[in-house]
Amino acid sequence: MNKINLQDKLALFDEHWTPKIVEELNDYQIKLVKIQGEFVWHEHADTDELFFVVEGEMEIEFEDHTMTLKAGEMCVVPKGVRHKPKAQDECKVMLIEPRGVVNTGEVDGELTAENDVWI
Amino acid sequence: MNKINLQDKLALFDEHWTPKIVEELNDYQIKLVKIQGEFVWHEHADTDELFFVVEGEMEIEFEDHTMTLKAGEMCVVPKGVRHKPKAQDECKVMLIEPRGVVNTGEVDGELTAENDVWI
Repeated sequence: MNKINLQDKLALFDEHWTPKIVEELNDYQIKLVKIQGEFVWHEHADTDELFFVVEGEMEIEFEDHTMTLKAGEMCVVPKGVRHKPKAQDECKVMLIEPRGVVNTGEVDGELTAENDVWI
Repeated sequence: MNKINLQDKLALFDEHWTPKIVEELNDYQIKLVKIQGEFVWHEHADTDELFFVVEGEMEIEFEDHTMTLKAGEMCVVPKGVRHKPKAQDECKVMLIEPRGVVNTGEVDGELTAENDVWI
């Protein structure tokens, strides 16, 4: 049983768009990721995905609108909903989703990150 | 699809030990709760439970040690592990657990809160 300090964990890596697992909750994983720039349009056909902004500001583009999330704000993107995360300046985000979710959903590309990387 | 601002949601209620649901992630619920004083010893036989401190400081007593959690820190209490949350001063906490979990686990008492109360 571990105490997880988000800022301590965030200090352990610098790269963008590579989610790191810090804890598991049943078969769900708690991940931290640093983002900057634009991600790819994608969806997760089988699961919702929670975004919680720890520090900074991000946007999630949807097909019909864009949501801005600041520190202390969260959004659950429903399964099957196409979205594109982006951030002008670096933003630190906590993600929660079931084990095994690929960050780029159905899109395999250079931003597809390795799964199950713990810090 | 909603943007959830934790502080805005926390401003909507004052009572202690009554978790309020702010969002769902598949069949999991994201809850906010304000705590002060001592809860009851209990366990959740079927599920882990995530505690994330939004503001303030809390302790979780386990049978063999006590963990202190401050703002920005989290802990997942594994299923079946007896624990007693407490806080000397008011502490604001986000809980994540599957839909239907009773806050006092197997213990039914005056601190048992109604489920599925949304704010």
